[in-house]
Amino acid sequence: MSAMLLQAQTLTREAFAPYGDVIEVCDNNQVIPINYGLTDRHHDLAQVDVAADGGRPIISIFRSRSVSVPFQVEIMERHPLGSQAFMGLGGHPYLVIVGLAGEFDAHKLRAFVASGNQGVNYHRGTWHHYCLSLEADSDFLVVDRGGDGHNCDEVRLPADLNISVTIQE
Amino acid sequence: MSAMLLQAQTLTREAFAPYGDVIEVCDNNQVIPINYGLTDRHHDLAQVDVAADGGRPIISIFRSRSVSVPFQVEIMERHPLGSQAFMGLGGHPYLVIVGLAGEFDAHKLRAFVASGNQGVNYHRGTWHHYCLSLEADSDFLVVDRGGDGHNCDEVRLPADLNISVTIQE
Repeated sequence: MSAMLLQAQTLTREAFAPYGDVIEVCDNNQVIPINYGLTDRHHDLAQVDVAADGGRPIISIFRSRSVSVPFQVEIMERHPLGSQAFMGLGGHPYLVIVGLAGEFDAHKLRAFVASGNQGVNYHRGTWHHYCLSLEADSDFLVVDRGGDGHNCDEVRLPADLNISVTIQE
Repeated sequence: MSAMLLQAQTLTREAFAPYGDVIEVCDNNQVIPINYGLTDRHHDLAQVDVAADGGRPIISIFRSRSVSVPFQVEIMERHPLGSQAFMGLGGHPYLVIVGLAGEFDAHKLRAFVASGNQGVNYHRGTWHHYCLSLEADSDFLVVDRGGDGHNCDEVRLPADLNISVTIQE
């Protein structure tokens, strides 16, 4: 049995860039004042990439029960045909566990803690764990791909590899 | 001077159907259990219609200052090339003021109060007022159309028509 401890770090755009986009209000966004000054539009924050094989963008709500840490990683998934964006609606933090697109490598996973004000958009093919709300059950607005085609691969970690995710102090 | 009082009603799918979609967790959604039982996917809640003239879906955050009621309607807008979805991120209610797609008719506007758990998706061409957060400044996750082309028409109400929106008790 091999055991790995994966410490989840604060989610930042720079660290997450190899996996996808962070969707948040931020000074270095393109900010467009609209609505006669009432609104700032933080513009075009994610690469929505869902058109492969006739796909179309869809909007859903995921209602997820919370998990606690340390969290054991058993299964990871990827969507070969489309990006998938999550925006937390309840203000609660959540765990983000990712691996680079391409051949799955359990030894190179990374973990992040997203705040309740941050969304993530997994790029097409990025390995990721499913929704892991922390502290409380939570709803997520999800923008991903609708349409035919095989758009979910799962991989189960080897039984002799124990990966436990904690939160970095 | 002609004065109209428009009473904003509780937002429901049935009442809003001529204008767009209501995005919310609801028993009569298509609900798909996923993530090994941890998550319910309320699936495909809005008609995202952004492909006209080479458009693509984009995700933005609108940060809007709040308004108070009674609210005077002066300007309405529509997006001839794409739908536009709003999901409130702060849990605050917001005003939704709409008119049917087609020739603008100021005398047939309707107003709704969306709860902090409801999103709206304006169908392509639906006349609507811009973001009107109530009670507090609020962020909205917005899914609309990116790309070239003229995608915003505005109409200013006649100066001799005063439309005031209040909230129905």
